[in-house]
Amino acid sequence: MDTRARQFDRELNNLKNKLLRMAATAENMTDRAIKALDDRDEKAIQPVPGQEDELNCLQIEIDEEVLRLLATRQPVALDLRFLIAATRINSELERIGDLVINITQNVIPLIRQAPLKPLEDIPRMADLARKMLNESIDAFVKEDALLAQSVIMTDDHVDNLKNQLLRELLTYMMSDPRTIEQALALILISRHLERIADHAVNISEETIYAIQGRDVRHPRTPKAHKSLPT
Amino acid sequence: MDTRARQFDRELNNLKNKLLRMAATAENMTDRAIKALDDRDEKAIQPVPGQEDELNCLQIEIDEEVLRLLATRQPVALDLRFLIAATRINSELERIGDLVINITQNVIPLIRQAPLKPLEDIPRMADLARKMLNESIDAFVKEDALLAQSVIMTDDHVDNLKNQLLRELLTYMMSDPRTIEQALALILISRHLERIADHAVNISEETIYAIQGRDVRHPRTPKAHKSLPT
Repeated sequence: MDTRARQFDRELNNLKNKLLRMAATAENMTDRAIKALDDRDEKAIQPVPGQEDELNCLQIEIDEEVLRLLATRQPVALDLRFLIAATRINSELERIGDLVINITQNVIPLIRQAPLKPLEDIPRMADLARKMLNESIDAFVKEDALLAQSVIMTDDHVDNLKNQLLRELLTYMMSDPRTIEQALALILISRHLERIADHAVNISEETIYAIQGRDVRHPRTPKAHKSLPT
Repeated sequence: MDTRARQFDRELNNLKNKLLRMAATAENMTDRAIKALDDRDEKAIQPVPGQEDELNCLQIEIDEEVLRLLATRQPVALDLRFLIAATRINSELERIGDLVINITQNVIPLIRQAPLKPLEDIPRMADLARKMLNESIDAFVKEDALLAQSVIMTDDHVDNLKNQLLRELLTYMMSDPRTIEQALALILISRHLERIADHAVNISEETIYAIQGRDVRHPRTPKAHKSLPT
């Protein structure tokens, strides 16, 4: 391998490491927000806004790096697809930061009130979403299309938990209107978690595309849950 | 201008036209879904899934075209930023299709029941979101950073409408639990519309970045509406 190729490889590895750092930060933020709710510990959320700033800074760094590599290395085929995927995965990770901020804004009023019911589905959804995120970036970095595919399959599980929670919370709301605000906050948190899982699916689809040059984004038609709000 | 440059210009214009077609389809779908709710006309929604397929096909076409141009033309500076922005704007537009599908799934059960209250804020939000989308693509195609900036400013207006509607619907739910399911469906529709507006903001930020090479994505810190669910 000549020096130029070796240097390009180092640059790609550097990019992968930055994406891994972003994903680790996004996972940690998600964990922190849901754990704060579970432990009823408002202070535990404090580092989240600073972590969101970190994600924003990393996003700008990564995009600049991708543009520089595209302009100077003029890659083709796999390398080109890899760089394009990196810039889109970058956006996915940054948006997870925004979602965790939304979660914390729902968590704070919930902590300040007596709990409606024991938390079960929300931490389970958060764990799944975090695992999906972790594996989706791992699949990208290791160029493992099978792992990416398995992340995509997990998404149904998250949707099922979301629907189960919604049914349960609707029952609470209807039988006691005093629970409405709390139940609504829990429903919205579950939707933000669902969207974090969706970002992991998007990252996995980008990964398969980058590795195989095959677009897997649209065999999946939107799933209809006609009896439940979407 | 030499032939090669003229041909590249034609290819860029072709790409812009495809993005305009995607945006027009996304606008039309949004309009159709909300009009169906307003007119209580379930049939009016029927073309929406077909339109979503169109968006998906256009997305794949546009991405292939961008990759081909990057590999064969090896553009730098403005042209490179333009192509990277095009592939990301492409994803934003495709996601709007998914959101409209979610909206229709909430609209159908609403049409089948007597209306909770006259629709006011939802059509207003939809009009704003549609206008933002239209102007954001227009700004990209015409390379008009000022117009893109004005789209970003409009987003607060959409957020205010969403919050106003939420307050009103919470009152309904608390005073009459029989309204809970309908009110929740309306809340979720308003959130999908808010996300369509967010995509228009993202498109505008991409546009400013492509034109000016300046990242405007993160001076905006997430807005806190602590008294309301986010």
